Amino acid sequence: MIVKKIGIIGLGNVGEETVRSLRKHSSLITQRTSLKIEIRGLCDKKKEKSKIASKFSLPFTSSAFELINDPQIDIIVELMGGITPARTFIIEALKKGKNVVTANKALLAEYGEDIFAVAKEKGKVVGFEASVCGAIPLIKSISAGLVSCEIKKLYGILNGTTNYILYKMGKEKIDFFSALREAQNKGLAEKRPFLDIEGIDSLHKLCILSYLCFGVWPNHRLVYTEGISKISLLDIFYTQELNYRIKLLAIAKKEKNILDLRVHPTLIPVGHPLAETPSIYNAVYLDTHPAGELLFYGEGAGGISTSSSVISDIVGIALNSFTPPFYQGSQVYSVNEKGALKRKQEIVFQSIKDVKTRYYIRFIAQDEPGVLTKVSKILASLNISIASVTQKERKKGKFVPIVMITHQAGEGNIRRALCKIDKLSVIKSPSQVIRIEDL
Amino acid sequence: MIVKKIGIIGLGNVGEETVRSLRKHSSLITQRTSLKIEIRGLCDKKKEKSKIASKFSLPFTSSAFELINDPQIDIIVELMGGITPARTFIIEALKKGKNVVTANKALLAEYGEDIFAVAKEKGKVVGFEASVCGAIPLIKSISAGLVSCEIKKLYGILNGTTNYILYKMGKEKIDFFSALREAQNKGLAEKRPFLDIEGIDSLHKLCILSYLCFGVWPNHRLVYTEGISKISLLDIFYTQELNYRIKLLAIAKKEKNILDLRVHPTLIPVGHPLAETPSIYNAVYLDTHPAGELLFYGEGAGGISTSSSVISDIVGIALNSFTPPFYQGSQVYSVNEKGALKRKQEIVFQSIKDVKTRYYIRFIAQDEPGVLTKVSKILASLNISIASVTQKERKKGKFVPIVMITHQAGEGNIRRALCKIDKLSVIKSPSQVIRIEDL
Repeated sequence: MIVKKIGIIGLGNVGEETVRSLRKHSSLITQRTSLKIEIRGLCDKKKEKSKIASKFSLPFTSSAFELINDPQIDIIVELMGGITPARTFIIEALKKGKNVVTANKALLAEYGEDIFAVAKEKGKVVGFEASVCGAIPLIKSISAGLVSCEIKKLYGILNGTTNYILYKMGKEKIDFFSALREAQNKGLAEKRPFLDIEGIDSLHKLCILSYLCFGVWPNHRLVYTEGISKISLLDIFYTQELNYRIKLLAIAKKEKNILDLRVHPTLIPVGHPLAETPSIYNAVYLDTHPAGELLFYGEGAGGISTSSSVISDIVGIALNSFTPPFYQGSQVYSVNEKGALKRKQEIVFQSIKDVKTRYYIRFIAQDEPGVLTKVSKILASLNISIASVTQKERKKGKFVPIVMITHQAGEGNIRRALCKIDKLSVIKSPSQVIRIEDL
Repeated sequence: MIVKKIGIIGLGNVGEETVRSLRKHSSLITQRTSLKIEIRGLCDKKKEKSKIASKFSLPFTSSAFELINDPQIDIIVELMGGITPARTFIIEALKKGKNVVTANKALLAEYGEDIFAVAKEKGKVVGFEASVCGAIPLIKSISAGLVSCEIKKLYGILNGTTNYILYKMGKEKIDFFSALREAQNKGLAEKRPFLDIEGIDSLHKLCILSYLCFGVWPNHRLVYTEGISKISLLDIFYTQELNYRIKLLAIAKKEKNILDLRVHPTLIPVGHPLAETPSIYNAVYLDTHPAGELLFYGEGAGGISTSSSVISDIVGIALNSFTPPFYQGSQVYSVNEKGALKRKQEIVFQSIKDVKTRYYIRFIAQDEPGVLTKVSKILASLNISIASVTQKERKKGKFVPIVMITHQAGEGNIRRALCKIDKLSVIKSPSQVIRIEDL
């Protein structure tokens, strides 16, 4: 039997559940792998968290360095979240020759490149399965399962909170704020839900997936990110009528050396598995060669389910069977004739302004003759061709919604058109625009 | 750069596509892993397959032992299928100290226990990602990703051919034989489609998943297996009306030490991702603790996509980061106080007769007064309670279908009831019965 010793820093929900799962399934893990994971110590800066340690009869410290400097510990598990001091703890642990497991997506999105570089230099690994899509073994599926695959497209529902809100809006016909409040009451959204609802959490995870799939860390401040707070019940109604659902998607597309990364609400056709992903679930769809289309689905949040991913990294590292991500901390390199690595191609990030897609546009217009003509004239002048228009029965003198689906159009033109249309006196601005992906 | 040498035995569709993918994505693999896979030789007993070797300028042999005995070869890739001589080749390769990669589900279902025992004895590994669900990295997801998870239920659409047939029947309202013929014309079903349509191929894969998830190889001859050839268009109509879809499911449920394994057509509710799995796709749904519900979806057949799984095993083994399945060839063991392994619990396989579930039953009955009374009396006498009955408008004197959905009932009772009902003179036997899973 192999015994490996770990120290856990951060006793929030995921931290506590990881301890509980390790206890509960300890004999199962040993049966399956002949491995015994021994928790040497728990750490949290909040001293009252020592109660959790007492509950499991485990040593507690409020100083992370006590664990990081413990020569007996093989793996440091960082589950505290946040940038500072998590970054220092991870870097110091690697420098002390320890492997690291983390669920910290914000930290990896910001400093992943540095962290993986230190790990490489020290010959250590960083497990980060729990940082993306909670319980879904997505990171391992990609890095171990798709090693020979070109990944052409990735569409991900990466945030459980926003998916819950959009799902509830669609199902119960309640507005954004009611759905948000419900999510908060159920503990599915934080009191300050900005990171989730504005798409930042999805963005962090997309950055990690960009590293995993394409070997590049984008500057996350430059990735186009749009949240769901402007989605109205009206849009939910109209898109359902048009046989679409609105989902907050993280999108990555690579063609040659151009990488298109973005996070925004997206219309996807009813019936596609991504469109049918309910409640707090996450789902990731990949279009690859040669493996074709793949979809992974599971719980995207919650300490209990996420503990499975944390433990799978601990066990993989302890058994020396952990598959590090492609490129192992390098950017995209190729191998020359002599076997030396040379930089192959610079990845160029596509600007959102160069994106071409179909659009859902919803105007609120005064119901008077000639409105449609004015709007469509502006669209035509910018080469935007309309695929369908929906305008419900007229209520004289009042404002009515007009919904258009466009054919493929350039984002730059759409923006210019909206700018002009919103200035029309017959339009109650701002108009709504949501991108469509034809999956 | 690490160089590993492989030999490929079997140049059917998967074999040829594996060679092609390895060529096409060779520099991608090297970029990502600093590994170079060198194909030392190709083998097929059919000498005309040497044309494939010439196409890729690779050495060809019709004697597998030339590769197995080649001391330069690190990994033998067996893609020939069938029991004999594949079994001998794999065992001999392991004995010669080579690791093995195989896509051979029939062989593993029959001799997996022996093969993994030899591998364990020799300290070698057998990669078998390609044996289940084509391109989906399911084996790795379970063995590396769910190592701390109890797997409570598994439902799998594991056979692309039957899923295609059922999907076409439902979509185009064609009967079983027309759909089968279409599948054959498209090369999606074999000329002798018995193994697919009678559920044997799904059964083989279920056996492998039983080993993977629960550490036990069942005797596949004792696992209840029912194919789709008796599904009529009438059943497709009625189940759709009742908001179900018929899918050929491989089912594994474990409660304490009782393992319930079976393969049969199953009614699952419309809207569940499994129900919506189209065409030749495969999907596997898992209910686990602590990871919760998970679903994996992708192409289940086809040489191109399956080559991804074959190569992922080759690369994992070559990099020494391959995760062997739980228990590594042993049955279910636990570890006693002194760290020694002892057999923990015998797994008891549940007989199909002890299954309790809900049922869809379709009778063809003479349309005369009292038929429903006769049928329901028999059902009641065997404790089978009816949840719903559908009988379409009467055509006097003719036969009409009656469809019933039962509440939870025992399989033994259902069989006894059907036996009695089919003997009624007003019933045109045999009646149809399909199990329901309430996902």
